[in-house]
Amino acid sequence: MQIEFLGTGAGAPGKFRNVSSLALRLLDERNSVWLFDAGEGTQHQILRTTLKPRKIDKIFVTHLHGDHIFGLPGLLSSRSFQGGDDKLTIYGPKGIRNFVLTSMRVSETKLSYYIDFVELTDGGKVFEDSKFTVYAAHLDHKIESFGYRVEEHDHDGELLVEKLQADQVPSGPVYGKLKKGETVTLPDGRVLHGQEYIGHAQKGRIVTILGDTRKTLNSEKLAKNADVLVHESTFSKDEATLARNYYHSTNVQAAEIAKKAHVGRLLLNHISARYTGKMAHELEREAQTVFANTKVVKDFDLIDVPFDKERES
Amino acid sequence: MQIEFLGTGAGAPGKFRNVSSLALRLLDERNSVWLFDAGEGTQHQILRTTLKPRKIDKIFVTHLHGDHIFGLPGLLSSRSFQGGDDKLTIYGPKGIRNFVLTSMRVSETKLSYYIDFVELTDGGKVFEDSKFTVYAAHLDHKIESFGYRVEEHDHDGELLVEKLQADQVPSGPVYGKLKKGETVTLPDGRVLHGQEYIGHAQKGRIVTILGDTRKTLNSEKLAKNADVLVHESTFSKDEATLARNYYHSTNVQAAEIAKKAHVGRLLLNHISARYTGKMAHELEREAQTVFANTKVVKDFDLIDVPFDKERES
Repeated sequence: MQIEFLGTGAGAPGKFRNVSSLALRLLDERNSVWLFDAGEGTQHQILRTTLKPRKIDKIFVTHLHGDHIFGLPGLLSSRSFQGGDDKLTIYGPKGIRNFVLTSMRVSETKLSYYIDFVELTDGGKVFEDSKFTVYAAHLDHKIESFGYRVEEHDHDGELLVEKLQADQVPSGPVYGKLKKGETVTLPDGRVLHGQEYIGHAQKGRIVTILGDTRKTLNSEKLAKNADVLVHESTFSKDEATLARNYYHSTNVQAAEIAKKAHVGRLLLNHISARYTGKMAHELEREAQTVFANTKVVKDFDLIDVPFDKERES
Repeated sequence: MQIEFLGTGAGAPGKFRNVSSLALRLLDERNSVWLFDAGEGTQHQILRTTLKPRKIDKIFVTHLHGDHIFGLPGLLSSRSFQGGDDKLTIYGPKGIRNFVLTSMRVSETKLSYYIDFVELTDGGKVFEDSKFTVYAAHLDHKIESFGYRVEEHDHDGELLVEKLQADQVPSGPVYGKLKKGETVTLPDGRVLHGQEYIGHAQKGRIVTILGDTRKTLNSEKLAKNADVLVHESTFSKDEATLARNYYHSTNVQAAEIAKKAHVGRLLLNHISARYTGKMAHELEREAQTVFANTKVVKDFDLIDVPFDKERES
């Protein structure tokens, strides 16, 4: 599980940061990629990575501002052109379906795959399978905006088959009993304890990815104990009034959310083109005074979401 | 008058060519820029040029395929964001208005300027002012596609005021008579002939820019005696059947149009990503066997449209 940032800028594309998009790479976990937002030029950014559009099977849209959705029609077209046949699901606020379908209809684009639209109204659980659950909740932006929390399910310890084979335990129903942690007596008289043949359980990871927002309680709820929180940082510490007026957050407000929610790591994106080089570093440094494990991300940063998190408190 | 190519690729963006867009720079002529098509990422390409979005006052759309229009919503938003206040006119096939307005409405984008949509049905004269006339005509593509012919009006010779002043001819109604080419007798007895005080007349330039098309008679009509013809070249000489099946042209078909229309120069664009480096050069060489003054253009090529053309025949 990795997060690959495709666009970390705010509002309009700049020379160094494209408009919003990031990929949650779940290649090991489910051989697929989930995209969060797709500003104009997202498919161009993808060309510079190893991502394959056909592997994208879900797109989560945080809100409908142009810098978060105007790359969708082109990306969807190219996914088809490049041989993507599998169904794609798009989650987002009401209106996303109309935008995508109008774009496809006007351009007479015939996609090679089916799109399932899930237009969100109230938030809550938006997806669940055997490995992941995704929750959404309203944030506080000028336009309806959602944050998403991706929870990987806890992973039970696996039966250590190689160890059983090394100990010459014949396969059969006994394997199932050991997997359940039971104690078993073999026909040859040996007594085996299940817990000796079960690997470590792994706690599922949690990634929270927020859309544009003012500082708001739902951000903290979505981010609770997350391993990684991706939060916008359109303004700097001293611009809290501007941030409020434009329905955005400062770097320090994002850090306060990270601290309260006890997250593992804070990644700041949606950085205004005003903050280049040294100034972006200063955004990071200011936020670190509140929450140490903070990074201002750049386009094409690839961030691993590790197991065995260490938390600040 | 110059043509700046912003995207010279076909269908989908590649690493070396973006999807379709070009700017007709009319800065000396009318202090404005006319854009022809706006595929996704056109505003990103513009960032790498000296073009200012607010100077764009007309956008001519050849057809509604995504690789020609998906950059419009972002470009229009950024034009507003960057302080463009002047009215913009968009010409194109029926549907362009719906695409643009849906994009603006869904994204809740409030533009700082008014857009006038001119949805074309039959072609003919689509614009005229004191300096330019623009004609459109249907081409032969899978979707309705237009070509545009931009005619600069002929420029009468100007009155050589500096020469009149050097000859100590007092200003007054006599200047108007000389401008009309009349012969005038001054109060001091001198006889002046108008034609001696009038500069060279300049023939207006003609630029023809076509949308995607099969080889078709209307291309030749639109290109008649043009100084520059911009023609798609999606396929190479040996792929005429493919070109026909996909409603496109080969390099040699484009050159045949250029030759028949007696144009000054042929610029080939809409080049498939299959043709890189040496192969693109080969496309050019093949076309040159039919029409010598042919160039396969690249993104960011800036081509001057000179007066005093020399024509092949």
